[in-house]
Amino acid sequence: MAGQQVNPPRGMRDFLPAEKAKRERVLRIIRDTYRAHGFDEIETPVMEDSDRLHAGLGGDNEKLAFAVMKRGLGVDDLHAAEAPLDLADLGLRYDLTVPLARFYASHRAELPAVFRSLQLGSVWRAERPQKGRYRQFVQTDVDILGEPGIRAEAELVTASLAVLEALGLGEASIRVNDRRLLEGMLRGFGFPDAELPGVLITVDKLDKIGPDGVAAELRERGAPTGAVEAFEAFLRRPQTREFLPFGDAHIRKRLPEGADEAVIADLVALGEAVAAARSASGSDPAAPVAPPLVFDPFLVRGMGYYTGPIFEVAHPSVGYSIGGGGRYDGMVGRFLGSEVPATGFSLGFERLIDLVELPETAAEQIALVHDAEAPVAPLLRLQAALVAGGARVRLVGRARNTKAQLDALAAEGFTRFAFVGAEVPDPAALDLKPLG
Amino acid sequence: MAGQQVNPPRGMRDFLPAEKAKRERVLRIIRDTYRAHGFDEIETPVMEDSDRLHAGLGGDNEKLAFAVMKRGLGVDDLHAAEAPLDLADLGLRYDLTVPLARFYASHRAELPAVFRSLQLGSVWRAERPQKGRYRQFVQTDVDILGEPGIRAEAELVTASLAVLEALGLGEASIRVNDRRLLEGMLRGFGFPDAELPGVLITVDKLDKIGPDGVAAELRERGAPTGAVEAFEAFLRRPQTREFLPFGDAHIRKRLPEGADEAVIADLVALGEAVAAARSASGSDPAAPVAPPLVFDPFLVRGMGYYTGPIFEVAHPSVGYSIGGGGRYDGMVGRFLGSEVPATGFSLGFERLIDLVELPETAAEQIALVHDAEAPVAPLLRLQAALVAGGARVRLVGRARNTKAQLDALAAEGFTRFAFVGAEVPDPAALDLKPLG
Repeated sequence: MAGQQVNPPRGMRDFLPAEKAKRERVLRIIRDTYRAHGFDEIETPVMEDSDRLHAGLGGDNEKLAFAVMKRGLGVDDLHAAEAPLDLADLGLRYDLTVPLARFYASHRAELPAVFRSLQLGSVWRAERPQKGRYRQFVQTDVDILGEPGIRAEAELVTASLAVLEALGLGEASIRVNDRRLLEGMLRGFGFPDAELPGVLITVDKLDKIGPDGVAAELRERGAPTGAVEAFEAFLRRPQTREFLPFGDAHIRKRLPEGADEAVIADLVALGEAVAAARSASGSDPAAPVAPPLVFDPFLVRGMGYYTGPIFEVAHPSVGYSIGGGGRYDGMVGRFLGSEVPATGFSLGFERLIDLVELPETAAEQIALVHDAEAPVAPLLRLQAALVAGGARVRLVGRARNTKAQLDALAAEGFTRFAFVGAEVPDPAALDLKPLG
Repeated sequence: MAGQQVNPPRGMRDFLPAEKAKRERVLRIIRDTYRAHGFDEIETPVMEDSDRLHAGLGGDNEKLAFAVMKRGLGVDDLHAAEAPLDLADLGLRYDLTVPLARFYASHRAELPAVFRSLQLGSVWRAERPQKGRYRQFVQTDVDILGEPGIRAEAELVTASLAVLEALGLGEASIRVNDRRLLEGMLRGFGFPDAELPGVLITVDKLDKIGPDGVAAELRERGAPTGAVEAFEAFLRRPQTREFLPFGDAHIRKRLPEGADEAVIADLVALGEAVAAARSASGSDPAAPVAPPLVFDPFLVRGMGYYTGPIFEVAHPSVGYSIGGGGRYDGMVGRFLGSEVPATGFSLGFERLIDLVELPETAAEQIALVHDAEAPVAPLLRLQAALVAGGARVRLVGRARNTKAQLDALAAEGFTRFAFVGAEVPDPAALDLKPLG
């Protein structure tokens, strides 16, 4: 079989030791921090019944589901099939939200009335191969089910900011909007309800194409001239683009008159809660803290299912968002047949991982570089004694080029080493030298 | 969609919070302990190219691989297919060994000369549904590639025993044999080489059917009468069944004359190394320690690919093995086209998990049971302060039946609670009461 293709399947990745160790360190921080904030981790199988994956909850991702063939098919079955999906009974999940909806419908009676779900898991999408697009990647989702009020969003945002802080990404900020404000504003300008989905697609491009581009595209869509003009004028108001500390004045300044007062009050409460949580972790709990939130009345978030507050995480060192989420009250209850209030937040693990610069674990990493004649029993006794003392210890047969070998060990993260010959010393007599 | 089937796919499981938390605790101990012993964790995609999964390295498991359909198939493709696998280009891995062989062939130049691999991952098998058989389950594999000598086995066994100890399963013992001793013994009795694979299948049943059953089945197989009689007489020798502390005398007593001296010396060295490592973790490093090993000359281990020392982990509280492994020198190099010495050890995660009784994390778990009018900002400030102090903290809206609610929180693992009303206290003034 020599010379066979030995790469991982197209669009999927192998993780070598250094990268895998980093991924596990980051996952551990995410898991421990969300758990500390009261979230409960769950796990569902990576496959779901095909019907469930194609029930209309996955948006465009449904088309990207990998299909798993039925077992025990015969040639007759292949020839009788009318479509590929006739031959598949299972598929790989393309997100963690459809499985959550299925899980919740199955286990609701065993879960707390307000369920704070944490999921860290891989998902699969048959994306066209291109740079930065993987066919298997990790998602880190938190969702709060059963709480209709802004308390849920306040917890999601607070806990997620604590995760980012723990990962050394404390400079991250969160853009906030509410679908109800956005849609109310557009209706106020005169866009008819039926056109809102299309209008939102255009508004979503504001950062890229600017007010001129948005107005031009809305005209192309055939939107009412009056509405486009009103919207364009609003976009060009100086205060629409003015940034203030997050709060009531900030939000009102960036909205037209007549916006929904209850929604504004919720967002103000969200900002106060996030600031309060931040102040408690700061050195002076009495000092006022500005919440790292920015109200953005034109934030859309692509998915059609959002019904309330929406979020997107920005970090000064990258131009793309590194997470986001929002309220999607209509969806989690679909398999249950009853409405379940739900709001979720997802940190983009594959985008975070490149930004994070975490030190290796503090534990000492020792390489015992031994001669071929070093006897195995005392070597393992020495290793066990050092491990019991808290170190990570590897036995390494001494190579001819010792210098290159020590350099490689240092590059792997080992901090100290000792040469060991035929006489293996006691731990106390071991001559450990620094590496690297 | 109400009333739809909402269970996970057949043979697969959802993990609720308590079970998931336990699985993650156990995985963390396995990961941290193997890493402390110098192993490097890697990860490969859950899917491999179909050709790789069906290359003859997976034994009977190849038939159990879930097949993933090619994307973009049309009806014509279905009708032109001559077999189901014509329509699949990928499949879900059924073990972690085939992916390791593929990974090693792809990345050997970037890995240490002796590579200590750790893999913790799910595998999938389309098993017939039956109790205790899952279609998705976790495997925890360590393998040492590139080391031909018994040092490798000594490290695998030592580290795996340390894992079991850390999981509170220190009473586990390991049955040891060597395929070369076993095959040499059977040849010595007069079984022809060509019949050895069949003979081994029968010998594997010794524990179940006893010497009489083995002899009868060998006769049914048409094995030479003289060989069967010699084997039966050997099985009935008193010293064959006598157990002594692991070591030279123990091994010789349970083998016929003329066994391979080099192999015996290796196993003796293995026992000494394991004992030495154990003594170093004990309270008195000078005290002699018996290695928790038992030489079993009739241990077979099903897989055909083993070439040297083989192992099986027993625990007094269960009748089935909870792990095992062995040397399989011919296999990892198959994708590389050159022989790579390899030996591996796998702990049966799904079998371990039921045996393990680990305390919840030591961290305090606090429920802040609050009234509906408790304002969210000071609540989140209080939570953040308690989290910063090391606790896990959940905000819980007070239910009408407070007693049932507190009982449920205690059952979930919460250790203390406080009622919080409209006036949210400072952390210092919080009146925490024990739960449960």
